[in-house]
Amino acid sequence: MTPPTAEHRLLARVEELIGRDLLEVEAIFDRELAHPHPFVRDLLAHIGRFRGKRLRPILLLLSAQAVGEIGHEHRVLSAVVEMIHTATLVHDDVLDDADVRRHVPTVNTRWNAETSVMLGDYLFTHAFHLAAGLGDARACRLIGAATNNVCVGELIQIRERGNFALTEDDYLRIIEGKTAELCGLCGDTGARYAGADEEVCEALREYGRSLGIAFQIADDLLDLLGDEGSAGKTLGSDLDKQKLTLPLIRLLDRAPEPDAARLRALLASSGALTRRDLLAELERSDALHYAQQRAREFAQQARFALNALPESPARRLLEDLTEFAIQRQF
Amino acid sequence: MTPPTAEHRLLARVEELIGRDLLEVEAIFDRELAHPHPFVRDLLAHIGRFRGKRLRPILLLLSAQAVGEIGHEHRVLSAVVEMIHTATLVHDDVLDDADVRRHVPTVNTRWNAETSVMLGDYLFTHAFHLAAGLGDARACRLIGAATNNVCVGELIQIRERGNFALTEDDYLRIIEGKTAELCGLCGDTGARYAGADEEVCEALREYGRSLGIAFQIADDLLDLLGDEGSAGKTLGSDLDKQKLTLPLIRLLDRAPEPDAARLRALLASSGALTRRDLLAELERSDALHYAQQRAREFAQQARFALNALPESPARRLLEDLTEFAIQRQF
Repeated sequence: MTPPTAEHRLLARVEELIGRDLLEVEAIFDRELAHPHPFVRDLLAHIGRFRGKRLRPILLLLSAQAVGEIGHEHRVLSAVVEMIHTATLVHDDVLDDADVRRHVPTVNTRWNAETSVMLGDYLFTHAFHLAAGLGDARACRLIGAATNNVCVGELIQIRERGNFALTEDDYLRIIEGKTAELCGLCGDTGARYAGADEEVCEALREYGRSLGIAFQIADDLLDLLGDEGSAGKTLGSDLDKQKLTLPLIRLLDRAPEPDAARLRALLASSGALTRRDLLAELERSDALHYAQQRAREFAQQARFALNALPESPARRLLEDLTEFAIQRQF
Repeated sequence: MTPPTAEHRLLARVEELIGRDLLEVEAIFDRELAHPHPFVRDLLAHIGRFRGKRLRPILLLLSAQAVGEIGHEHRVLSAVVEMIHTATLVHDDVLDDADVRRHVPTVNTRWNAETSVMLGDYLFTHAFHLAAGLGDARACRLIGAATNNVCVGELIQIRERGNFALTEDDYLRIIEGKTAELCGLCGDTGARYAGADEEVCEALREYGRSLGIAFQIADDLLDLLGDEGSAGKTLGSDLDKQKLTLPLIRLLDRAPEPDAARLRALLASSGALTRRDLLAELERSDALHYAQQRAREFAQQARFALNALPESPARRLLEDLTEFAIQRQF
């Protein structure tokens, strides 16, 4: 037997503190989405197999626990954000032409892109319906605004494909939308529905946003460096789709002009550059180290935001999640 | 100059009664969606050119006027339903691989399918954000539920492609979701936010649903019979996508078995049957007449539901819209 990794130990502590709430979140998720039509049922059973790290519900519930008590609203809102996140995954898989997600064929592979589009819409609209059931329009408005910013991030990312002059600022603006927004929402609503002051809600939003950015940089590194077996999804899709991520932006920015020009030409001609070729280039430069360093800085910012909170087991877990975000292998 | 058609006269009366409200709905629509990023701006300017009949805002505003007074909430909710409708159009164009909509290239032709997916999501999430801004979670819940049923209708429609044993009941169940739901929502919320009794809200929901079904049957007839020039969109896509609609369901149901089997085989082998071939078959049968008759029956049901309302110019327009729904050429 392999000894438990740091990640496993962290997840065991999460399980101990909020495991029952997470089970209830899953029950709400399943109950709300259930539908009598056999096709819809098949689709839902299929995406049930995508169930992953549940980072967003964990964030929301720990934020609540760190400032007060977890209540029914937190569990409902956690199911809402997980639905929204799942909707974006299903739509992302269309965008990325991905074949596999969490070791399971994507909806567009198993059925078709049309089904993915509509299933994503089904999840989005259910999320809003469920949120509205709390009877508080403010929650709907916060969720609507955050989700909208996710879409803007994704739209700009689509637009910037093939733009090999993308800067680090452009990149950060994209991932602030597509990843940080929803994580920020989790921190904020978790605290807000536990009765926290505006200042504390803001601090936990900031925590979630910074954690989300760190997490996304790590995810983008994984897309370049990871092993498909343990990642459980198609990798290298950023490269295929000519999406520049932080390591490549750094590499192009620091390489002497003839090298940078040669790389840009290779990136632009589809299939000319494999993940393996690129890895060699990246390893000769400071680009991987730089991206890891930036992820670490955002994780640090996230931890700093937690200073607004009193000491507690939930706060310690939020702190430790920042390490998990940047070191994860899956 | 060609003399004004019945449709033009009807639209002129609509304009006279609620033209200023419709302008305000458009202003809210544009203001809410506005975004500083040039790409998002380009996309919004592009879909602005899709602006069509505005059937759903008209339904909502006339329903309000028929039972009371049009207020700010009605104009906001009208913009919300128009956003949701536009989102489904943008996603439908991905589903149908359509090239042209309202004489304008679709988003997937002008840009790509990925952009369509995300732009649709942008519109959906904005619609919910705008609805939530009314401060009434009930509206969000009604809108969430209706939109969700739209998605179920679309999912089942995708599933049933290539099913040449589809029955009329199956067909009606699909269009009840994908078209009738949102029209029913317009009738209901129009009345509800004008302070109508539950019974009247229900009658206007029923009106909207029946009108929506009549409208969709007519739309499906148009896809078979229409002229692409005046329809302003790609036609025959139901045929290409092996989507059975009412005339074909009737044709297959009534044809003697050898003919039906031959037709099914032709429908199943893509491109084997052109719109023109099929038209000849349809004209030899009672199928077109039958579908028109069914549309007329639903229009009649819609008019019947209006008996719950007092006489008024708005009610008369709602009545006359039922004729428009089944006779339109565009």
